[in-house]
Amino acid sequence: MKKYKKADFPVDKIRRFLEPGPIVLISSQWNGKTNIMTQGWHTVMEFTPAWVGCIISDGSHSFEMIKRSKACVINIPEVDLVDEVVGIGNSTGAEIDKFETFKLTAQPAAMVKAPLIAECYANFECKLVDARLIQTYNYFIFEVVKAHAAAAPRYPRTVHYRGDGVFMVLRTVAQQASPIQARKPVTGGKDKKARA
Amino acid sequence: MKKYKKADFPVDKIRRFLEPGPIVLISSQWNGKTNIMTQGWHTVMEFTPAWVGCIISDGSHSFEMIKRSKACVINIPEVDLVDEVVGIGNSTGAEIDKFETFKLTAQPAAMVKAPLIAECYANFECKLVDARLIQTYNYFIFEVVKAHAAAAPRYPRTVHYRGDGVFMVLRTVAQQASPIQARKPVTGGKDKKARA
Repeated sequence: MKKYKKADFPVDKIRRFLEPGPIVLISSQWNGKTNIMTQGWHTVMEFTPAWVGCIISDGSHSFEMIKRSKACVINIPEVDLVDEVVGIGNSTGAEIDKFETFKLTAQPAAMVKAPLIAECYANFECKLVDARLIQTYNYFIFEVVKAHAAAAPRYPRTVHYRGDGVFMVLRTVAQQASPIQARKPVTGGKDKKARA
Repeated sequence: MKKYKKADFPVDKIRRFLEPGPIVLISSQWNGKTNIMTQGWHTVMEFTPAWVGCIISDGSHSFEMIKRSKACVINIPEVDLVDEVVGIGNSTGAEIDKFETFKLTAQPAAMVKAPLIAECYANFECKLVDARLIQTYNYFIFEVVKAHAAAAPRYPRTVHYRGDGVFMVLRTVAQQASPIQARKPVTGGKDKKARA
């Protein structure tokens, strides 16, 4: 499997990779063991600090590991990892070592105690900053404190989950009737420029 | 512009359209006026009830309208509406009537007081069910109480925002080395089947 050559990436720009809504692999570490889960229910919440909200099922093995360690890494796979994405989502870290089973490479993170997945296009090191919604919604609010991303390809061929086992790939830049490159952001949290 | 022939759609299956992460148009109504905003920071939070979390900037005209009316409609545009998506995101309902300016058709919703956009592939009628995170994060938790969706095309060509004015289109079903149609869901909130 391909390992990417990555560089540090500004955390306030990670929305480029998360806002399009890809399936991500969330890696964690607790009590000397690592784990990986497949996840598709996440949203950017703010540019600075770089907040991301994620639903992590309390039925998952990752739930307690992330809740206790207060950290994780959000990894962005490309479509060549779709079988690993499915396999990881359909197995549990209570029974297997997912890095070993799926032949993925754990790399140390710089700022959190959870491993990066070398075979993913980008890796976002996350600290849990708000645990108040965990009990009601299984909703974790993380701050991305360090980001790593490959420079190529410019637009990673991420996978997006349609339910019922169907994934789609984000592939093509939209053709617009009028140029939009220079326009203002169209979304945002507390970004005052967004005024729709 | 195309108007879709739609049917009622089960609310516990709307994740098919939201989990892939499309840009959505959120329509609202308050005090006799309507508005539309472009939005890309949202996540599915639960199947049943069909909870969806959305960041709505407090700098936006929609913010107060949705907070006060406690309702909105999440509309899913296809790529043919990308210019409207950008135009709606770069203008404010404080100055213009967006339905009129962008030549979109408001249709009455069945269960909330906010209009559906006829030119969108799907429309999800939403009630605000948790306002506790609005002050801290501009984060609204909605329940989808009624959903309408077109039957064709099967996979809508949704637009996904990369930041900096760049949109991408979800187009291709992923090619897997092994079939995955029959496998279990790979994500989930309190869905006990997800145990990654």
